[in-house]
Amino acid sequence: MQFVSCNLQHLCRRAIRDLCEPNSVYKQIFRRFTVTVRLADFSKWGTTKKNRKLKIQITQDMADPKIEEILSPLRDGVKEQGDYVRKLKSNGAPELDIKVAVAELKHRKKLLEEKELSFSQTILFDRARMEDLLKRRFFFDQSFAIYGGISGQFDFGPMGCAFKTNLLNTWRSFFILEEQMLEVDCSILTPEPVLQASGHVERFADLMVKDVKTGECFRLDHLIKSHLKKVISDKKTNENVSRECEDIITKLDGMTKEKMAEVMSKFNIKSPITGNDLTEPMEFNLMFGTQIGPSGLVKGFLRPETAQGIFVNFKRLLSFNQDRLPFAAAQIGNAFRNEISPRSGLLRVREFTMAEIEYFYHPDERDHPKFDDIKDLSVLLYTDLNQMDGKGAEYMTLHQAVSHEIIKNETLAYFMGRIYLFLIKVGIDPKRLRFRQHMQNEMAHYACDCWDAECLTSYGWIECVGCADRSCYDLEQHARATGVKLVAERKLPVPATVEKLEIVPNKVIIGKTFKKDSKFVLETLENSGTSNVRAMESELNLHGQIEISLPDDSTVFITKDMIEIKRYKKTIHVEEVIPYVIEPSFGIGRIMYAIFEHNFKVREGDEKRTYFSLPPIVAPLKCSVLPLSGNNEFVPFVKQLSQNLTKVDVSHKVDDSSGSIGRRYARTDEIAIPFGITIDFDTLKVPHTATLRERDSMGQVRINLNEIPDIVRDLSNGKLTWSEVEEKYPKFEQQETTETK
Amino acid sequence: MQFVSCNLQHLCRRAIRDLCEPNSVYKQIFRRFTVTVRLADFSKWGTTKKNRKLKIQITQDMADPKIEEILSPLRDGVKEQGDYVRKLKSNGAPELDIKVAVAELKHRKKLLEEKELSFSQTILFDRARMEDLLKRRFFFDQSFAIYGGISGQFDFGPMGCAFKTNLLNTWRSFFILEEQMLEVDCSILTPEPVLQASGHVERFADLMVKDVKTGECFRLDHLIKSHLKKVISDKKTNENVSRECEDIITKLDGMTKEKMAEVMSKFNIKSPITGNDLTEPMEFNLMFGTQIGPSGLVKGFLRPETAQGIFVNFKRLLSFNQDRLPFAAAQIGNAFRNEISPRSGLLRVREFTMAEIEYFYHPDERDHPKFDDIKDLSVLLYTDLNQMDGKGAEYMTLHQAVSHEIIKNETLAYFMGRIYLFLIKVGIDPKRLRFRQHMQNEMAHYACDCWDAECLTSYGWIECVGCADRSCYDLEQHARATGVKLVAERKLPVPATVEKLEIVPNKVIIGKTFKKDSKFVLETLENSGTSNVRAMESELNLHGQIEISLPDDSTVFITKDMIEIKRYKKTIHVEEVIPYVIEPSFGIGRIMYAIFEHNFKVREGDEKRTYFSLPPIVAPLKCSVLPLSGNNEFVPFVKQLSQNLTKVDVSHKVDDSSGSIGRRYARTDEIAIPFGITIDFDTLKVPHTATLRERDSMGQVRINLNEIPDIVRDLSNGKLTWSEVEEKYPKFEQQETTETK
Repeated sequence: MQFVSCNLQHLCRRAIRDLCEPNSVYKQIFRRFTVTVRLADFSKWGTTKKNRKLKIQITQDMADPKIEEILSPLRDGVKEQGDYVRKLKSNGAPELDIKVAVAELKHRKKLLEEKELSFSQTILFDRARMEDLLKRRFFFDQSFAIYGGISGQFDFGPMGCAFKTNLLNTWRSFFILEEQMLEVDCSILTPEPVLQASGHVERFADLMVKDVKTGECFRLDHLIKSHLKKVISDKKTNENVSRECEDIITKLDGMTKEKMAEVMSKFNIKSPITGNDLTEPMEFNLMFGTQIGPSGLVKGFLRPETAQGIFVNFKRLLSFNQDRLPFAAAQIGNAFRNEISPRSGLLRVREFTMAEIEYFYHPDERDHPKFDDIKDLSVLLYTDLNQMDGKGAEYMTLHQAVSHEIIKNETLAYFMGRIYLFLIKVGIDPKRLRFRQHMQNEMAHYACDCWDAECLTSYGWIECVGCADRSCYDLEQHARATGVKLVAERKLPVPATVEKLEIVPNKVIIGKTFKKDSKFVLETLENSGTSNVRAMESELNLHGQIEISLPDDSTVFITKDMIEIKRYKKTIHVEEVIPYVIEPSFGIGRIMYAIFEHNFKVREGDEKRTYFSLPPIVAPLKCSVLPLSGNNEFVPFVKQLSQNLTKVDVSHKVDDSSGSIGRRYARTDEIAIPFGITIDFDTLKVPHTATLRERDSMGQVRINLNEIPDIVRDLSNGKLTWSEVEEKYPKFEQQETTETK
Repeated sequence: MQFVSCNLQHLCRRAIRDLCEPNSVYKQIFRRFTVTVRLADFSKWGTTKKNRKLKIQITQDMADPKIEEILSPLRDGVKEQGDYVRKLKSNGAPELDIKVAVAELKHRKKLLEEKELSFSQTILFDRARMEDLLKRRFFFDQSFAIYGGISGQFDFGPMGCAFKTNLLNTWRSFFILEEQMLEVDCSILTPEPVLQASGHVERFADLMVKDVKTGECFRLDHLIKSHLKKVISDKKTNENVSRECEDIITKLDGMTKEKMAEVMSKFNIKSPITGNDLTEPMEFNLMFGTQIGPSGLVKGFLRPETAQGIFVNFKRLLSFNQDRLPFAAAQIGNAFRNEISPRSGLLRVREFTMAEIEYFYHPDERDHPKFDDIKDLSVLLYTDLNQMDGKGAEYMTLHQAVSHEIIKNETLAYFMGRIYLFLIKVGIDPKRLRFRQHMQNEMAHYACDCWDAECLTSYGWIECVGCADRSCYDLEQHARATGVKLVAERKLPVPATVEKLEIVPNKVIIGKTFKKDSKFVLETLENSGTSNVRAMESELNLHGQIEISLPDDSTVFITKDMIEIKRYKKTIHVEEVIPYVIEPSFGIGRIMYAIFEHNFKVREGDEKRTYFSLPPIVAPLKCSVLPLSGNNEFVPFVKQLSQNLTKVDVSHKVDDSSGSIGRRYARTDEIAIPFGITIDFDTLKVPHTATLRERDSMGQVRINLNEIPDIVRDLSNGKLTWSEVEEKYPKFEQQETTETK
């Protein structure tokens, strides 16, 4: 339940007009959303007076049958296409056909999602107003603004920084302390070979084009989309062309570089800013490059994620854990992505803080000892299947999800449960939180299953936490690149004898046949493990040859004369295993942004007063100390109280500026301070007491001055609730509203 | 007082031999240092048996008259040269002569310091052994080691990372919380103009040369020094050449690029690795460069310090502080320096964490309201004057230092006092901590006074915290570069009328006279403030011309026909002031390293057992939980205790591995865990109790199980001392030493 204020003129005039007409779609929806409108405003509907405000109390409920009626055909469309994709796949259709079909599926999903969102409260959310508050009180703002600023970079001011610190400390205590994880702090500057092995040098890129004269860059998919949308909306465009444009937009996501170049030339796309010609499309790697050391010989990048620092330290961490699996390592730190066109505030930035966990486990042991702690949590899951079928997200318990194999195993589900509990604890609205499973075709190159914790904001559903099963991809890659074994050992109950297979290549024939490629071929053959050799052997027997892909994507064939397969027996006492990895990865800036939106409130009865209802545990400061006036007698009490609060580690702000108490409360509400202590004339009397006020309810109680620091500390760390305080101490009755006058 | 273990064979055999001879220097010194030697070892002196250990209990006391006797001539040499430099300066000698004299002064200071250090305990410190422990238990280690590693980059493992986190949280609570500072968190990637204004693009560089064939780089001063030292030590070198080499080494610090090139060619210096030719010397900027955005047009650097992020946000921070001075802003974050040759472990690295404070104050108001809190602290000060005079550092109270104008003002002294208290709190040995004042000629380009908190380590005295008075340098620079006023306002008690002076240049004459330089000349003249104009006017009247330096360091002269000086009166109600800045700047990695050295201990009576006596507040984990054996009956007690510790936020490690309690204690001592709880058979009885052990004293007490979590929490945050615990609870008598067998 939440109050949102919207500007009729600019945000949803049409919605309100529709609201007045019986049977209109919007009306139905707003009814369902329990619309409460003050009559004074209601009477002025339809006038043109600017900046009219409407207060709407809404509860989100996407399961409304009236909404379902509208969404149903869209859902059907998605399902139809999803079935078609599945059919293509099972029939072994050509890859291109599947790609096209998947693109259409995504397009339909997007239409459905947009319509769903148009029914939620986000259209009524006044983002500009929240952004004004965030900027005015310097929660965060653009970096280097006095120099004109750099897009995609933000500085956190005192309140944003304190909020971030508290969020990270809560994360640390919730994950690292409670689960006894191994925290590391690794280098940001990363030499190229590490990121070659991880796949980032090759694959971490977007397509872009440049203005040939100014050098200005555009992300190609964004550019084509906006150009074609303009074509469509042009009245002179005939229907055929329009349809073609729509078709291209639909397919953009999976489109190749060459195809995009064709589109550019066909529609004669120029720079939207200067009208100049554009270059051919080029791949732009999103990593920031630099040189390490003065020689110019060691190429490095700013890490694009913190995960790799953990993987390259795997051996040390395993040894720290006394060589036992499972264990979790974690890292909090900055990562960098050179976005072509950063936007959406904190959501798409060039420099950001991540908190990542890598949980290393034996692939045979996927149950989790603490699964019971979270199994009964009911969370909103948006499965791969439901997305393909055009169905919405569904609530179910994690236990149900695992037993129906919707979530693959207990360990993955356990982390999803922990992520859920953490997000709720730090202020995410559970009604605006869901887990969306990645569809097979959108999975990152390293993942084999992935669920994103998404938060609903005015930008739509945004990914805040990823929870990926990376299998053993990264350890394998780094082991291959370095020749260092990255495995754990498990002692076998009894020693076992196993058959080993090894390829002995005929170097002469291979050298003659493949010339410059023979080195690569030999390495590939010699480094094949037993299971690979076994597969190769059966392929060789079946087809008479084995196919090997070269780095340039061409292929060569190995025939029987080129290799011999050697077999031998080996007794083993321990089993070596490359651990699997579950990776919960938190985007701290995005989580902060979602918390801001979910906690931005307007004071009922006084729409000018906006505030953030951040949970005390993450609020930047825990309390304010406000002397009623500039009276000198208050000074020693304020000073003493401030010292006592510091002693019990309660961060606070003394506001002894002029202005009524009401105005000062409003100011501290804006920066999300949950508790306020007022020193007044009654404080001077023995026993010394003061007023303690809670931000959200604005309730006030009177408490003995020397009890206050401990009470505020306990309120702040969640050991005490406000209602317990209200029960125990006498209510203070003076009305805040009268004070604000 | 501290125990240090040394290896006789490898470290100080000579010292020990000398110790046996009456009247030897070493003996005197060791006597003074209160040598305690176990007889068993003593009896074996002079034998050649390898790895004999000697345990020496030392107290550092540099004021020993015997030591002074040796140091005295060195001190005199420094003083003589210091006086000479002063004389040159006061006689207005040519700059080059002064530079040469200063270089000689620095050289003599260095000799003195090295001799002083040779008398301290550091020669007895077994660094290799400490480094082994740091590496073995993964406190920190080289980054990307499986890829061969990158020098100057380190990863912190679980214990190093937890130590760092605790150190930073203590810093935050000690400075930010207690002093209500405004913490910010700014971007690392910084566009070029910002660092141009701050002076880093131009001045933040070292000279280097490259191997013409391999491209390998050498820092030029290091290279020349090591080459000439080799020349000197060569027996074939005659005395004249030797003296010349020594002379050059002495003067290296202030030497120009051209002069160094001459030296290189004169001594035919080649690459010490390949013998190849070397390039001409070139300036190498120590900042890591990169491109922001895809266009390649926005050049950026990784910030070399965190300070600039605060300066560019000055206006927002002032406004957050309701436009009032003074206030302090702070930032914790990473900074980067592309060192040419990183070395000395954590001391000279490419990527490091800093914690910086910028205290903005009105230049007329240099007293500090909380000066009384620290004024009686006695700290070791090594003043500019004493360094020039060849005297040592002296203990004095901060009050004395301010009243004798040794420290310029209360505010600077206040921060030095706070720095001192902080360093002691986190584990720096006060006897190995001093404040050294920068001499005029070594001050950074922005500083007008600077004191370094230096810690004595096996690398000598190393700078851990700088405390600089940056005056208004940075704000002025950024204001000039951006045209944005970076000032605070102070209301005048009564409005004042002031005379303003402004230069009106004759653009025609200036244009004709200076041609391409005229634009720069005009800007310089037009942007001169009233006080500058007044100075120019008097120069013009005195000499008939004003000198202006051009960016290429040439000068032009302005004559009376080129300008007119306009005067007018203005009534002002507020005074604008560019705030001055005091900057305490903490190198977190260096502080951590010094803490490691100051707390590395060997267990008396069992020299194989080394450990870190880190103060509980920064110790990586606060306690261990050790079941006596694998007995199943212990499991529920361990689990419950672990949960209860987590509830009160006590970080801990359950060690249920096999191995005797003594061995497990030793293992937890190594990773600096201050408290250990042992669950044994008595625990099973009602009332359930357990043993609590303290790391440094190895004292043990028996406490009720459910009281333990709160007690460990209070011990960890300093609210309770171990001796209070020992007084209150029954001693547990079982001897640890017998358990380790």
